[in-house]
Parts: sequence; structure tokens; C-alpha cells
Amino acid sequence: MQRVLVLNAGSSSLKFKLFTAAGTSLGEAGLGGQFDRIGDVANCTLKASQPGAAPGMKPRKWELKVPAQDHVGAMKGILDFIKENVSATFASEVVAVGHRIVHGLDLSQPVLLTPSSTATIKQAAVLAPLHNPPGLQGIEAATEVFSGVPQVAVFDTAFHQTMPPHAYMYGLPYELYEKHKIRRYGFHGTSHKYLVEQAAAMLGKPVSDTNVITCHLGNGSSVAAVRGGQCVDTSMGLTPLEGLLMGTRCGDMDPAVVLHIQNQCGLNVKETDTLLNKKSGLLGLTGSNDLRAVIEGAGKGELRSQLGLDMFTYRVRKYIGAYTAALDGKVDAVVFSAGIGENSPFIRKLIAEPLHAMGMQLDHAANDTAVGRAGVISTPGSRVQLLVIPTDEELSIAEQTLQVAKGALGAAAA
Amino acid sequence: MQRVLVLNAGSSSLKFKLFTAAGTSLGEAGLGGQFDRIGDVANCTLKASQPGAAPGMKPRKWELKVPAQDHVGAMKGILDFIKENVSATFASEVVAVGHRIVHGLDLSQPVLLTPSSTATIKQAAVLAPLHNPPGLQGIEAATEVFSGVPQVAVFDTAFHQTMPPHAYMYGLPYELYEKHKIRRYGFHGTSHKYLVEQAAAMLGKPVSDTNVITCHLGNGSSVAAVRGGQCVDTSMGLTPLEGLLMGTRCGDMDPAVVLHIQNQCGLNVKETDTLLNKKSGLLGLTGSNDLRAVIEGAGKGELRSQLGLDMFTYRVRKYIGAYTAALDGKVDAVVFSAGIGENSPFIRKLIAEPLHAMGMQLDHAANDTAVGRAGVISTPGSRVQLLVIPTDEELSIAEQTLQVAKGALGAAAA
Repeated sequence: MQRVLVLNAGSSSLKFKLFTAAGTSLGEAGLGGQFDRIGDVANCTLKASQPGAAPGMKPRKWELKVPAQDHVGAMKGILDFIKENVSATFASEVVAVGHRIVHGLDLSQPVLLTPSSTATIKQAAVLAPLHNPPGLQGIEAATEVFSGVPQVAVFDTAFHQTMPPHAYMYGLPYELYEKHKIRRYGFHGTSHKYLVEQAAAMLGKPVSDTNVITCHLGNGSSVAAVRGGQCVDTSMGLTPLEGLLMGTRCGDMDPAVVLHIQNQCGLNVKETDTLLNKKSGLLGLTGSNDLRAVIEGAGKGELRSQLGLDMFTYRVRKYIGAYTAALDGKVDAVVFSAGIGENSPFIRKLIAEPLHAMGMQLDHAANDTAVGRAGVISTPGSRVQLLVIPTDEELSIAEQTLQVAKGALGAAAA
Repeated sequence: MQRVLVLNAGSSSLKFKLFTAAGTSLGEAGLGGQFDRIGDVANCTLKASQPGAAPGMKPRKWELKVPAQDHVGAMKGILDFIKENVSATFASEVVAVGHRIVHGLDLSQPVLLTPSSTATIKQAAVLAPLHNPPGLQGIEAATEVFSGVPQVAVFDTAFHQTMPPHAYMYGLPYELYEKHKIRRYGFHGTSHKYLVEQAAAMLGKPVSDTNVITCHLGNGSSVAAVRGGQCVDTSMGLTPLEGLLMGTRCGDMDPAVVLHIQNQCGLNVKETDTLLNKKSGLLGLTGSNDLRAVIEGAGKGELRSQLGLDMFTYRVRKYIGAYTAALDGKVDAVVFSAGIGENSPFIRKLIAEPLHAMGMQLDHAANDTAVGRAGVISTPGSRVQLLVIPTDEELSIAEQTLQVAKGALGAAAA
């Protein structure tokens, strides 16, 4: 059996998932888990789970203390765990490793990791100082453990590289783009790409003929406008701070507010960054970064929770309107996905119900039942279809990894 | 004859316009002009003009050197000029002075200037450090020269005070709103208010039943969403920096870009402010802050001019879409106004033509002929009407000033 390993490294965490592969197609996701508190040796934990591999087989779960000083240690810990608890052969069956990398500059496709492409990821760390360095540690760890196995970087920014300049440029002196590469990049690209492909399948249209607005609504949230399968605009920008109201991020805001806060509160650049990225959004407004708690608070009549709820849904609605204009009014479907989008009929209703005069007719019964699964939640007569689609970034990364790696193997063999 | 004087003070300039008044209604605008380079005593200039006061009378124009060390000196210079060149009685006929004041915090109406309301304007100077201090100097100058004449402050922010909290709040810690009044205020309010009233008249509907999107497109530009005559959202924010791409202002941007520029370019708060407000927008992208030059450059195939043009029009289009959603898809008309909106059929075409699938059908012949005058530029069958309306902030300020002053005079007489 061949397997593809997907890795997603955070500053002190390492997520993994194994997929079986047959030729160029993937099987079901199998074992997956997450290493936490890497570096805090006494408290490192490894959680893992495995769905029932065959009918009648029970799913399995583990939670272990495994010391790891760094990502290499965590990677080794994961492999030892697999060998001892799951299968002695799994690790040796890995034919490709895929890494989720947040920032890929202007790369529009996943790349086989070579010294040159790794250097590009290092270069992009200037633009993603929180996100790319852990990704590089994940690459380093996998390189040490899986020597000779092709590794692939799949970028959160790649899908958005088709945006035209009038969508990705900011209104700044042009030299800032030339010298410092300051522009809109967009994130959650792997998710948006996956959603577009799934939406096209649900609509029964070729991707190249599908116009959709994809709403990835989770703790981090973003919207993308997609014409003929290609991204033409997205709400996140140079960083994941721009756009919708998020769990702890402020989203869209007068850029002058940043300067005003620095003046009024005496904050330096780093402190302002922490304020806007970690203490704002739903958390800053309501005291909780969890939309479920905010909904509950609003239900009890808490005014700030109601405000957070109104702001969250109003901003999604404004983006749906703006991107309808960006798509010249030609929208096949609006897609709701990720933690909130997949699981909250209430939020989808708050977003979509006021848009019926824009050709988006919510089917309340269908909306109420599409929880954690795909479904059409608009009425049969709705001009624009409303869809719920569970996103699967790991599957998409595994697919893209296998494609690139097979290409690489083919090239090496030729 | 009674007259109303409208003043608009900049840091080194003072604009004025006189209107005749009969009871509570205004006559035509008469003499108007602008004092420039106040403080630069050797180079102060006063330009003025007067339309032909009666049929057959020629319009008159003046350009003089008049020394003025400060706004009081400029105000006196204007009155001396009027006495010597236009009329010995005009100044003594002024029954009310109206001031354009940029920032009025949460005041939703024009106010009679008293020590208390003047203190509020001083307080708001923290939020509008570039704009409110000159306004206060204009008030000081008029108070010295027109002692006993009621003076009224008309705020650029007032019309937008009807916005609901989910439109005016930013996604920041709530304390920043409580302690520092950080929120969206919006500007160009006098213009948007005037446009809404004119649009309702053109549509033959009461203002209270009129939903419009007003696009004030000049060197500074903003859009407002208006439901039943009341503003529900607008593109400018805490400051006039947010929203559309402007002559020298960046408009909407990932707030993290501000921090990234400070880190990468070593700019302090003041330098960053200058960069974003004075060196960005069309100027930063194309080298010119004048959209006419940008259009000309794009016509010659200059890529950056084309980019500036595309960005300017794309952002207006996105706001029209976003505000269509904010108005639940129920839009009677989209209004184009101010320097660009009134005078450029080309720009209006770039903005509106792609929106035909959203019910906005441009009538090309009507669009081409509506230059500098009001007109309907959509087809008779267009679901949403497209209107051109020349804005007149001075007339609106004079009207509001007279209303408030008459109330004040009545109250004083009672």
C-alpha cells in the first residue's frame, strides 16, 4: 500500500494525516492527529485517531505524553507512535509528504521541495513571520525522517494568484509593490479551491464554467470571488488580518485607525500587531472568540454579543454583494463552509435571508438539516444557488501532493 | 436684502460664498471666492467671482494680492475687498454665518455655535487633527468680524450618524470605542444628504421612501448607502482615508500593511500618516493625483495609469455591490456626483456598464450628454435608475445654517 502524509506545522504544533494512494488517486483518509506543546518537553501531547478501517471495525483514539524538543523530535515521536500502536509498515509506505505552507509569494501551484523552492518559502517568511517559519520546521523535520521521499509544499496563497492586478494591488506608492512585494495575496486558498471543485460537481457544470462566491467561515474567515474556476478577488490581504470579522482578528478597518491607536494608546508596532491579530474581532467586542458563545450571549440579550453577531453576518453579506458586482452579477452559487459555515444554519440564515431580492432564496427546511454535510439550501426557484460544502484542506493537499510527486517520480525515472 | 455667508477654512485657505435669503428660503448663490496662502504674507492671494446678478449683466472676476497673517486677517481682507469692489452694504446684510466643519463626533445635526458646541468641535480635533483646527480658526475669524451674528457649524459627519452599530463599529476591543470614540464616522455628509434629497425629487418619491447609493467621486471620494433617506453605511471611516481609491489616499487596505510598512521602511507614525494620506492613491500608483491625467495616460497605453483607472472604477463597483446587499437588494437609484462623477461619462461607463446583470442598465447616449448637469443616464427599462446630480455643499450648508439661525433668532426674540 502506498501512502501520502500531510503535515501542517504551527509554531509549537504539528498536525498530520495519512491517506492511502493507488496510482494517482487517493483512498480514504486514515490515521490522523496532532502534536501539541512542542518544546515544552514535560507537557508535549500527541493525540491521534483512526476511523474504522473496514465495516464493523471500531474507530480508535489515543492521547499520549511524548517528549519533543523541536519539530524533528515531534516527527520522530509520531513515527514511533505509529510503529508501536498502529502499524509497523505505515511509515515505510509513505511515497510523498505534503506540507501546508501559508505564504508562497507569487507561486500559483504546489511545488516539489528543492533547495530553490525552499529558499522561496524562506523569503516569503518576511511577509508571514508567524506562519512560514513553523512550515519550514515541518519541512526540516520531514526531510530528516523521510530522506529520499518527495516532498511538496502546498500554499494557502496559490489559488488566489489568478487575481487581476486591480484586485490585488493596494493604493500605495508603486515602489512598495516592486521593492517589498506588498499586495493582496489571500489565504485559505486550498479550501477555496476545493470548494469551487465540489460546487461545480454539485451544480453539474465544468469548473471552467462555474462562477461562485465561496465563504470559508471558521475561527479565521475569508470569502473568494471565483469566475470560471479562477479566483478574481478574496477578502484576506497581505496577511490574514484583512476582510471579515474573525475570532480574534479585526478584519477590514480604516488604515488610519492603526496610527490613531499608536498615538492614543502609545503602542509600538509589535503591540499593535498583537492587539489587531490576537485581541480584536469577536473576542475584543464580546469577550469570546467562539461564535457559538456569542450566539448564546445574544440569545440572552447581551448587547455586545448581539453586536458581534450582527457585525459578523453583515460583513459576510457585504462581501457577497461586493463579489456579486466583481462577477458582473453572474453568480451560480454562494458556498458556505468551514466550522461556522458547515455547522450553523442560524448564521447562514442571518447572512442569506436578507439577500432574497438579490436572487438568493433560502430554503429554511433544507438549511436546518444541512449540518456538517453537503447540501443545497436554496429553493428550487432561486436564481443563485446556496450550497453547504464541508471543506477538506488535508484531502486537497494530499491530492495536489500526489500529483506533483508522481510528476516528479516520472521525471526522475525518465 | 439679507445674506448668508458660508465659510470653509483650510489650514492656509479660506473659501467663502454669499447667498441671498428671503425669510427662511435662500436665493441664488452670489459672490464667492477663496483666500490662499494665509500666513505667507507676501504671497497671499484672494480670488473671487460673481455671476451676472441680472439678465444681461456680465459675470465678474478678481485676483488680488492681499496680505493676511492668519484667518482673522483673511476674513477682514475678504470684507474689505467686498466693500471696495462689490458692495458697501453686503457685509452688514449678513444675518447668519455657516461653517463647514469636518468632524462633529456624534452630533447628528448642525449646531448654533456657543461656547459648549465650540468645545465639542475642539474635542473632535483629536480625531480630525488636520481638519478641525482650521475650522476653529474660521469660527474665530468670523466671530471677531461678525459679532452678534448667529454662527452655525455644519458637520461633514452629521448625515452618517444614522448608521446602525454593526456598520459603524470596528472589530476592535470594545474599550477603544468607549474610551477613545474609535468608530466609523464618515465624511462628505453634507454632499450625500444633498444628493439624496435631489435624487428623491428626481425620482418623484418622498425622501423617507427613497433607497439610494450615492457616489461622491472627486479628489476625495466616498460612497453612502441610504435607506428611506437615512444613511446606513458609508465608505469613509474614523478618518477620510478609508474606502475608495482617492487622489492621494490609499483607501481600503489590510490594516497589517501599515505595520509591515513601518517595519520594512522604518517609518514612524507621522511619516506613515503622510505616506498613506498624501503620497498614495492615484498619485502613488500613477504619478498623478488627477484622474483626467490618469485617463489620458491609460489612453496612451501607460500600464500604471491603466492600473489606477481599473482600481478606481473596480472599487466603486464593489461598493455599489456591497451597498446593494446592505440595502437588501432594494435600490431605487445609484447617484454619481462631484468632480469626477458629474463630469466624466467615461468613468461612469467603466463603473456602471459591467453591472447590467444587477439591474443597472446604462443609457450610453444619455450618459455622454449628462456633463456638469443633472440627468437620468439609465435606460427607461432599468430596474435601478442611474442618476447624475451636481452636488452643492455650499448651498446645503447655507440652507442648514439659515434653518438653525432662524430657529435661534426666533428663540432669542421669544
